[in-house]
Amino acid sequence: MALRTSAQYKEGLCDGRTVFYRGEKVKDVYGHPDLAPAVDHSALCYDIHDLNPDLAVEVVDGEPTSYFWVPPTSPDALKRRGELIEDVSRRGGGTIVLKEVGSDALFALLRATKGEGRENAERYVAKVRSEDLALCVGQTDVKGDRSLGPSQQTDPDLYLRVVAEDADSITVRGAKTHTSFSANADEILVLPTRAMGPDDAAYAVSFAIPIDTPGLSLYVSPFSAGERNAFEHPLSSRHKLLESLTVFDDVRVPKDRVFLNGDTTLAGPLALAFVDYHRFTAINYKLPLLDQLVGAAMLVAEANGISKAGHVKTKITEMIIWAETVRGLADLAAVRATEGENGVWRPDSLYVNMAKYHFAHGFSEASQHLIDLAGGILITGPGGEDWAVP
Amino acid sequence: MALRTSAQYKEGLCDGRTVFYRGEKVKDVYGHPDLAPAVDHSALCYDIHDLNPDLAVEVVDGEPTSYFWVPPTSPDALKRRGELIEDVSRRGGGTIVLKEVGSDALFALLRATKGEGRENAERYVAKVRSEDLALCVGQTDVKGDRSLGPSQQTDPDLYLRVVAEDADSITVRGAKTHTSFSANADEILVLPTRAMGPDDAAYAVSFAIPIDTPGLSLYVSPFSAGERNAFEHPLSSRHKLLESLTVFDDVRVPKDRVFLNGDTTLAGPLALAFVDYHRFTAINYKLPLLDQLVGAAMLVAEANGISKAGHVKTKITEMIIWAETVRGLADLAAVRATEGENGVWRPDSLYVNMAKYHFAHGFSEASQHLIDLAGGILITGPGGEDWAVP
Amino acid sequence: MALRTSAQYKEGLCDGRTVFYRGEKVKDVYGHPDLAPAVDHSALCYDIHDLNPDLAVEVVDGEPTSYFWVPPTSPDALKRRGELIEDVSRRGGGTIVLKEVGSDALFALLRATKGEGRENAERYVAKVRSEDLALCVGQTDVKGDRSLGPSQQTDPDLYLRVVAEDADSITVRGAKTHTSFSANADEILVLPTRAMGPDDAAYAVSFAIPIDTPGLSLYVSPFSAGERNAFEHPLSSRHKLLESLTVFDDVRVPKDRVFLNGDTTLAGPLALAFVDYHRFTAINYKLPLLDQLVGAAMLVAEANGISKAGHVKTKITEMIIWAETVRGLADLAAVRATEGENGVWRPDSLYVNMAKYHFAHGFSEASQHLIDLAGGILITGPGGEDWAVP
Amino acid sequence: MALRTSAQYKEGLCDGRTVFYRGEKVKDVYGHPDLAPAVDHSALCYDIHDLNPDLAVEVVDGEPTSYFWVPPTSPDALKRRGELIEDVSRRGGGTIVLKEVGSDALFALLRATKGEGRENAERYVAKVRSEDLALCVGQTDVKGDRSLGPSQQTDPDLYLRVVAEDADSITVRGAKTHTSFSANADEILVLPTRAMGPDDAAYAVSFAIPIDTPGLSLYVSPFSAGERNAFEHPLSSRHKLLESLTVFDDVRVPKDRVFLNGDTTLAGPLALAFVDYHRFTAINYKLPLLDQLVGAAMLVAEANGISKAGHVKTKITEMIIWAETVRGLADLAAVRATEGENGVWRPDSLYVNMAKYHFAHGFSEASQHLIDLAGGILITGPGGEDWAVP
Repeated sequence: MALRTSAQYKEGLCDGRTVFYRGEKVKDVYGHPDLAPAVDHSALCYDIHDLNPDLAVEVVDGEPTSYFWVPPTSPDALKRRGELIEDVSRRGGGTIVLKEVGSDALFALLRATKGEGRENAERYVAKVRSEDLALCVGQTDVKGDRSLGPSQQTDPDLYLRVVAEDADSITVRGAKTHTSFSANADEILVLPTRAMGPDDAAYAVSFAIPIDTPGLSLYVSPFSAGERNAFEHPLSSRHKLLESLTVFDDVRVPKDRVFLNGDTTLAGPLALAFVDYHRFTAINYKLPLLDQLVGAAMLVAEANGISKAGHVKTKITEMIIWAETVRGLADLAAVRATEGENGVWRPDSLYVNMAKYHFAHGFSEASQHLIDLAGGILITGPGGEDWAVP
Repeated sequence: MALRTSAQYKEGLCDGRTVFYRGEKVKDVYGHPDLAPAVDHSALCYDIHDLNPDLAVEVVDGEPTSYFWVPPTSPDALKRRGELIEDVSRRGGGTIVLKEVGSDALFALLRATKGEGRENAERYVAKVRSEDLALCVGQTDVKGDRSLGPSQQTDPDLYLRVVAEDADSITVRGAKTHTSFSANADEILVLPTRAMGPDDAAYAVSFAIPIDTPGLSLYVSPFSAGERNAFEHPLSSRHKLLESLTVFDDVRVPKDRVFLNGDTTLAGPLALAFVDYHRFTAINYKLPLLDQLVGAAMLVAEANGISKAGHVKTKITEMIIWAETVRGLADLAAVRATEGENGVWRPDSLYVNMAKYHFAHGFSEASQHLIDLAGGILITGPGGEDWAVP
Repeated sequence: MALRTSAQYKEGLCDGRTVFYRGEKVKDVYGHPDLAPAVDHSALCYDIHDLNPDLAVEVVDGEPTSYFWVPPTSPDALKRRGELIEDVSRRGGGTIVLKEVGSDALFALLRATKGEGRENAERYVAKVRSEDLALCVGQTDVKGDRSLGPSQQTDPDLYLRVVAEDADSITVRGAKTHTSFSANADEILVLPTRAMGPDDAAYAVSFAIPIDTPGLSLYVSPFSAGERNAFEHPLSSRHKLLESLTVFDDVRVPKDRVFLNGDTTLAGPLALAFVDYHRFTAINYKLPLLDQLVGAAMLVAEANGISKAGHVKTKITEMIIWAETVRGLADLAAVRATEGENGVWRPDSLYVNMAKYHFAHGFSEASQHLIDLAGGILITGPGGEDWAVP
Repeated sequence: MALRTSAQYKEGLCDGRTVFYRGEKVKDVYGHPDLAPAVDHSALCYDIHDLNPDLAVEVVDGEPTSYFWVPPTSPDALKRRGELIEDVSRRGGGTIVLKEVGSDALFALLRATKGEGRENAERYVAKVRSEDLALCVGQTDVKGDRSLGPSQQTDPDLYLRVVAEDADSITVRGAKTHTSFSANADEILVLPTRAMGPDDAAYAVSFAIPIDTPGLSLYVSPFSAGERNAFEHPLSSRHKLLESLTVFDDVRVPKDRVFLNGDTTLAGPLALAFVDYHRFTAINYKLPLLDQLVGAAMLVAEANGISKAGHVKTKITEMIIWAETVRGLADLAAVRATEGENGVWRPDSLYVNMAKYHFAHGFSEASQHLIDLAGGILITGPGGEDWAVP
């Protein structure tokens, strides 16, 4: 079973996971009206097998496999990965889906682990691929004082750490923030968030466990939840992702699921290897969002009868330049890819980062242009129900 | 009775007004959970009589009177008006309250009407002042093709117009958009939205009527409604204003309530006279918002432990410069005020407009700075209910 | 003789050309101290045959030929052309040399001429290549009122036009501005500056003539002349180009040197075909200039002891992003080249224009950063002679 | 003799001063063709007595006195000072003249000296006023490593310091950079450049001496010298200032000319008090420059026939907003002036600094706008002599 269906994916979420939302424990993620749209959205990364098999499916060892799980071995492979990410994102309203992040982390493991950790990593990559798992990533710690390292904090639990170890397992305590997709994933893969110093051995830890592991609790953000009016929120009522504060309350992790345990020299390289792929993912999944902003600007200008005004044309031109600059640099990042450790290829860091810079640097201005072109009607117009009145 | 209480104001809203919200007719504006916060917010312009009588109350003809209704006759008077607006706005979370807009329009009537219209205007100003009415303003028309004037549109009702007239009344048809406070005002004052050409006589119309006048319907925007979680929305859950699409379906207006009827030469001056005051109002009520952005930036930077980073200090400094530039130019607009028509003073147009320019030009960047300093927690953090758990 | 030496090039400039400079007629361009550095600089495009033959020389029809004159027939050919332009520019202090512009125009002729004009164009391209001529381009007219076309101007000579024609020749009158390299070129190639309407037939003209043709006068700009202090002006004292107002006072042009004569439908395509190549040239020859700005910023920051300050690192990072964005987009313009008319390939217009946009858009800020980092010493420091005192 | 004429001023420059320019010693500053325009320009601050006596002359102790030398004692006094500075600058092509800087420093001495230094300061202020001296200021040291204080530098002479002291004099060694007007002033007033630490006593020094004091040498910058073509350089060919590297090679200073000698606690306050006035001077003398940029933009747009284009109007509007923002904030800085130490009033620091920020922040963009509107003719046009040809 190397390819799951979206129905299988959704069924897999019914387990004993501990998810809190708006102060209450959620029994069934897919059964909750605020959370269900996020599950449907994430299911796109399974539906894509049928929607666009040429991009999304690759035969590996004789079995059809999700292309997300195939480690890149050439510039062309990264180009195809970029196109797959853009395609899924376009179908998903410009919002990322979960396999993208999980596979970024798997490729990082293949490049930046050693010894037993690496053996575990290779076995885990094979398992995820063969079972087509929904994998989320927990990287960012709570951090506390950012000018200090993990072991220098007043509270030792501000970074996730190993608090106990026996022959078969380690036990971890702490929390990860900004964890995307966790509430609707099968497993969570934990990575260190930064380079570590010699005193930070307890914090140099990486592993993967099922979401329903005892001691693991997810506190899901309500941001953008409740936007169910499809007229007023045509995208976010259908496409969204769940973010959580992810608490590890002395969670026991079997040793064959541990990829890093105490080797501080590997923490930084592993964190950065993930970034290599995740920034490339980010700039590719954003492309449909940029196109949406440009398209929305053109449509709203036409609706307002201002398409021919000079300043309107200037604004739209600037938006197009912004979108195509990000697209061009994202493309170059694949074209100039180089071979990384263990034969896993990586996108060109300079161009990945410049694409990210241009995206972030221009986003505020592009949004402002769109708001200017739309005018006050966005805020003062009647609700969706009023428009439905004949 | 020259000063009403906020309780009296709220009682006054219970009449036969036609208000639609989310596809349904609203029976009692103050009784509706989504609309009530806006009524409470607007009530601030009555509570201010007690909260800051030195600024807000002036004895006129022997009676204590809301200072909002006193036409300015000197630079100092405009300075005090600016301070009053800033004070009420600060208590109101940086959001405008309704007497400000209504009084902007009254001063415009005093400067830019003539003949019978001016007599009606003077009588109306006295009535509003003596009854301390909640007055909203309908200025912006639906417009259609913005490159054409009112009488050149394909659909003659895209600008509000007079469709009938008899000895005692005129009848008007059309709609105004972006009408602030209408659903919770006592009366609406209608102004032309632009200069008119010789063929636009039917569109050169200004008048004031009660909100419950037959034929008048308000379609209230749901924007920012439902934000009732005070933890997640500390300001907008308490302070908000209602905006409506305001439809005039052959509404009959008594002639003693008409301030302009067919004299196209007065349409532009009346529209601009309103703008003179309304931009001055806008830059003064925004000042507490600017202070909030600066203060929030400083607090969040401290909370994130990044106050000492160079780029953080630069961002906060830029925000302070922005806020103080707007404040300084707003002050200059009062200091350099000049006498307008009929002895009613006006703020300096150049500095009013420059203050507005700086506000609008810097708002996007200031917001972006605040978002950057806050980080992802705004979006990924648990809901307000989760934080309440002990 | 398909490759000339720089000595041969310089000798070729001694003819009867009419060049004015600072109010006086110049007898010998290379003999004039203000003009000689520009000749030496342009000679780089002959010296490059020896300096970098791999890039600069190609065997065509059995003869070593300047690669500048080889029409591109693939993305790789455009990539090599870009590298050649960048290499010559780097040796030339970031300043363009003349063969680049001339060859841009030749490729345009090959794509956008027809009939007899095309035959003349092909013969002329062969002549330039085989004689390795120094060719400049006159495109921009004086223009007058820019909202009107050539034939609508009050003065008919504001755009260059044909004033007479006989069996063997046409006679042209008017002027071209901003003509680069004219005073030190062998020939000038004239192109239309814009699309033409049906009434503009007399203005739809393109041809090439020697600089010493009777009736042709060049008024050379003194801008940046006299900067001979190599300490204060390390680049512009050695590398510069001559720009002229180029006057055609009833100049007779043999018909076999005419590429366009009256066919208004070809004027726009010819103008734009030149732009296709010239913008590609522009972004490639600018790259060393961008590198100089970045390098100068880093050196001056180090000299001032401020390299480690946060705002300094931010400024330099922004400059690097700017330079590498232009470089990346320039590269993409070649990678995505497509075949144009008559088998002559063209760079991708979208990416050429975006590279140009980013260059122009960021130049002012980059310059400002460099000025900020350098500080007042640039302006208040002693002269070069003072530093030489032991 | 409280008012000198410009002729008297110029005569006063003929003394034994040591001035180097382009590697050679200058015998007569006013006799040198490159330096004379700067002397003529500075003379404006004497000519202004006749050109605008209402602003420039005030009777003090029964004698007509230059208003530059009158310490401000009210907001109105600072307002008048601002107007005087703007008026002289407008006549001087937007370039500062020397009494402005000298008087900034005198006011600082009156506020931030103590004991014997203060007595000397008061006597010196009276002398400058009564003799109407041309006074320049040396503040900025060479500095070396900016992250270290004066006494921490490897080379002890990187900040000006006292190297010897006897009963009647101190002897100083070091250099000041960016010294404006020194070559054409009567005296130089030296101020500390920053706050000092306890170990920096030798560097906490302030005094005033004649320019021809033995051991004092000025190395004058050639920047913008030689721009004598009034067609090409209509302003800088007539209006300029001389900047020098000012070397103190064991210069002996009489004790009655010393204002600060070793009291490190006063160094910072004295440096900042000067800045209070000098930034106010800076924003006022820049105002005519801003007006020139706006005016030039409007004229060149008209000359190019592009005044009506939307983007051109936008650019010019942005330039006007910039200029008027600086002017408004400069005005506010005087309006909100407060009393400083010893009864000498000071402009409001917040608004002075914000005006300076807006000037500096917008200058690059305004310049870029002007360059864009002017087009290439600035660089490619014939020289001034060519235009003179009939």
